[in-house]
Amino acid sequence: MHLTQDEIVTHLQTLLLKEQISINKTVLELHSKDESYHKPHNPEVVVYPYTTADTSKILMFANDYNIKVVPFGLGTSLEGHVIPYNQQLTIDFSLMNKILDVSPEDFLVTVQPGVTRSELNKALKRHGLFFPVDPGADATLGGMVATNASGTTSVKYGVMRDQVRDLEVVLADGRIIHTGNRAAKSSSGYHLNGLFTGSEGTLGAFTELTLKVHGIPEHIMAGRAIFPTIKDAIESVVSILQAGIPIARVELVDEASIEQVNSHSDQDFPVKPTLFLEFHGNEAGLKSDVDFMKLIVEDHYCEGIEFEKDNTKRNILWEARHNLAYAYTHGYPGKDMMVTDVVLPISKLAEAVIFARTELDKTLIEGGILGHVGDGNFHVLLMIDPNNPAEIKKAHDFNEKLVMHAINNGGTCTGEHGVGIGKQKYQRIEHGEAYDVMIAIKQVLDPKNILNSDKNITIN
Amino acid sequence: MHLTQDEIVTHLQTLLLKEQISINKTVLELHSKDESYHKPHNPEVVVYPYTTADTSKILMFANDYNIKVVPFGLGTSLEGHVIPYNQQLTIDFSLMNKILDVSPEDFLVTVQPGVTRSELNKALKRHGLFFPVDPGADATLGGMVATNASGTTSVKYGVMRDQVRDLEVVLADGRIIHTGNRAAKSSSGYHLNGLFTGSEGTLGAFTELTLKVHGIPEHIMAGRAIFPTIKDAIESVVSILQAGIPIARVELVDEASIEQVNSHSDQDFPVKPTLFLEFHGNEAGLKSDVDFMKLIVEDHYCEGIEFEKDNTKRNILWEARHNLAYAYTHGYPGKDMMVTDVVLPISKLAEAVIFARTELDKTLIEGGILGHVGDGNFHVLLMIDPNNPAEIKKAHDFNEKLVMHAINNGGTCTGEHGVGIGKQKYQRIEHGEAYDVMIAIKQVLDPKNILNSDKNITIN
Repeated sequence: MHLTQDEIVTHLQTLLLKEQISINKTVLELHSKDESYHKPHNPEVVVYPYTTADTSKILMFANDYNIKVVPFGLGTSLEGHVIPYNQQLTIDFSLMNKILDVSPEDFLVTVQPGVTRSELNKALKRHGLFFPVDPGADATLGGMVATNASGTTSVKYGVMRDQVRDLEVVLADGRIIHTGNRAAKSSSGYHLNGLFTGSEGTLGAFTELTLKVHGIPEHIMAGRAIFPTIKDAIESVVSILQAGIPIARVELVDEASIEQVNSHSDQDFPVKPTLFLEFHGNEAGLKSDVDFMKLIVEDHYCEGIEFEKDNTKRNILWEARHNLAYAYTHGYPGKDMMVTDVVLPISKLAEAVIFARTELDKTLIEGGILGHVGDGNFHVLLMIDPNNPAEIKKAHDFNEKLVMHAINNGGTCTGEHGVGIGKQKYQRIEHGEAYDVMIAIKQVLDPKNILNSDKNITIN
Repeated sequence: MHLTQDEIVTHLQTLLLKEQISINKTVLELHSKDESYHKPHNPEVVVYPYTTADTSKILMFANDYNIKVVPFGLGTSLEGHVIPYNQQLTIDFSLMNKILDVSPEDFLVTVQPGVTRSELNKALKRHGLFFPVDPGADATLGGMVATNASGTTSVKYGVMRDQVRDLEVVLADGRIIHTGNRAAKSSSGYHLNGLFTGSEGTLGAFTELTLKVHGIPEHIMAGRAIFPTIKDAIESVVSILQAGIPIARVELVDEASIEQVNSHSDQDFPVKPTLFLEFHGNEAGLKSDVDFMKLIVEDHYCEGIEFEKDNTKRNILWEARHNLAYAYTHGYPGKDMMVTDVVLPISKLAEAVIFARTELDKTLIEGGILGHVGDGNFHVLLMIDPNNPAEIKKAHDFNEKLVMHAINNGGTCTGEHGVGIGKQKYQRIEHGEAYDVMIAIKQVLDPKNILNSDKNITIN
């Protein structure tokens, strides 16, 4: 049994309002891609649930008729997660975008999956709260849970998984479950919060998220430190961590990327391996931390360190860092960006970044290196010509070298972008027999294999 | 097919050394109980693996012959987790007690499951590191992962699950997997670290743990604050958290428990609701935090606050708090201790603790209240006469009232002790249809239901 586009629409119309179902060509195309280099592919139908009940009806129908589906937020994923290569139906959660509850006393919010992180932060500000996970893109929170996103602040505040207290999830067969509760900790039952976070739409669709939020820090100090080599920059971070100085953000930006920052953000930063740093705390404690930190970086041949005290200048600094991906895109018109995403134990990071630069230079492809150094995570941004198969192959081979190097050194193929389709070929290599456990879980929770079935955990 | 004790021994002798297998009556009795009030029950055989390969052989044999097994650390569990009510074979991991690796640069250790937390901390000290999770008892780290233990420092450093980077797990059928890696974060595959942590021996046996460790704080301040009421004490903690002051420990001790502390630890603390507090950081930052904190507690009618500056006095303070459970046991010879373990969102905590005290008074059972207030977790310690069925029933009914009150207020039946057999009857109530997902996972990973099958997730 294989329903046609018409049949799917006819069925959905018995369950939902007409306005919730679309086969408009432009709409289909908007759901054919994400922000990655992966090839677009249209779904046959896009459906917009308003409620959990709608989502349950849609999945019950899809499961009954073996229709493969993919949940969709805003399409900011970086490994093709939301591209419906073998899915007929995209479930777009952008209309489930309400902030349902803010509980400042409990440091909790409950939101629908279509709320973006900037919308959430806007609502939190008046309570003196913020949501720390910042993957760069203004992604939906549902999408961020699906990929276990993280970003610059994870070294202090943790990744998405660390913020998830409860998910309302619609399972493949339409059943609705809650994976957690509102308590700060629990040893009751299996840890479903952790299992569903990062499951990339393969175990269920999220319809409500209860997330931990944090108090806006009393005091923030941000600065830039430049070094003669990448190795010195990374080794100084290791020393800062070992000294027990709590860093809120520490980003490595290599020379090539500083050049992009300068030209895109109208800055004049020295073209040197640079750390962008941030510290959160009370004023007296920060002063003491920063003074100690300065001594440490000097030991690692730091050539200059500057702190921005006022808020505006600090924002400009971080905007420059955050816009780096867009800087590259603008700097190389007509080219697509491929981004690597390995993580290594921090003791192996300097060597890995040097390895990456050496190998990147060999490819002759333009690109730069960015690192969430405190987590051992770094990205290589490669600008590739989508019409040059030889270059694409070179870029893929380069990515594979980095991934294998990371895995062989106790690391992982993806720190924050997720598996999608881009990192599938490394799953068996990285997880070994544990991959069979993942497959068994996928099979038992989605026996008809309808949920984003060609992404993350795939059954052959 | 059901093997006898003799047959199990004979089979095991073909796989292991004779010295690894015991049917000695004293040994069986030592494996018949934990530290809870739950009724003891002997296993038929105890087996001591030396290696992962041993463990794999044992489980392969058990699975082939449908022999139910329970993994065992030191028997410090509090809900009957390790009591072999329906298990013939106890696998005792106390001889797998090596610290395999300490990597200060990566803040990681790799240990065998039989290492205790105090053994680990002894080895870490020379590196300026410590392992923060402290459940009171000197449990094995394998056991602490199995129950997702936590304790006084979790408000700052997180629970066991937050420390787990990788587990080597022997599955029911003897297969050996790794659930993670050495990277600080990962979005690759499903989060097996989280799933296996807290699984209470029902999904596999742990043979190697890679855990996050932390730098010993530069500076520590610890103190006691007394309040006219429990409500004032808890509300001051909420205000401290909202002010963004990072607390490393905050323990509520009620009047009855202060009396026990005084008589057992030879102290003379005022018999008032008391907070034991600790802060970690640099000296200047701590001074600023503590000054601010003092203003806040004064707003909440604090009647006195004292800080211990020197290390010895600080240790005496925390020893008094830590020995409280033993103080009660000594204070009521012949009685057994039952400990409740609910968690609520912190906004509901004061009301819940007051409810607990009111209901406890009604039972006329002696006991006290202790709280990891920063996490919303509190324990009621009840001293019950094991030969008085009416009293035992009253204690159970009381526990049930607290659990239902917690669940109805967004909380959980267990924050750190785990489910074992004591909290099973609340699993369906707490998790709803999510419990079916847990059962499905248990069934697919342990199809013959041999792994600690009457604990945590049970299949009827």
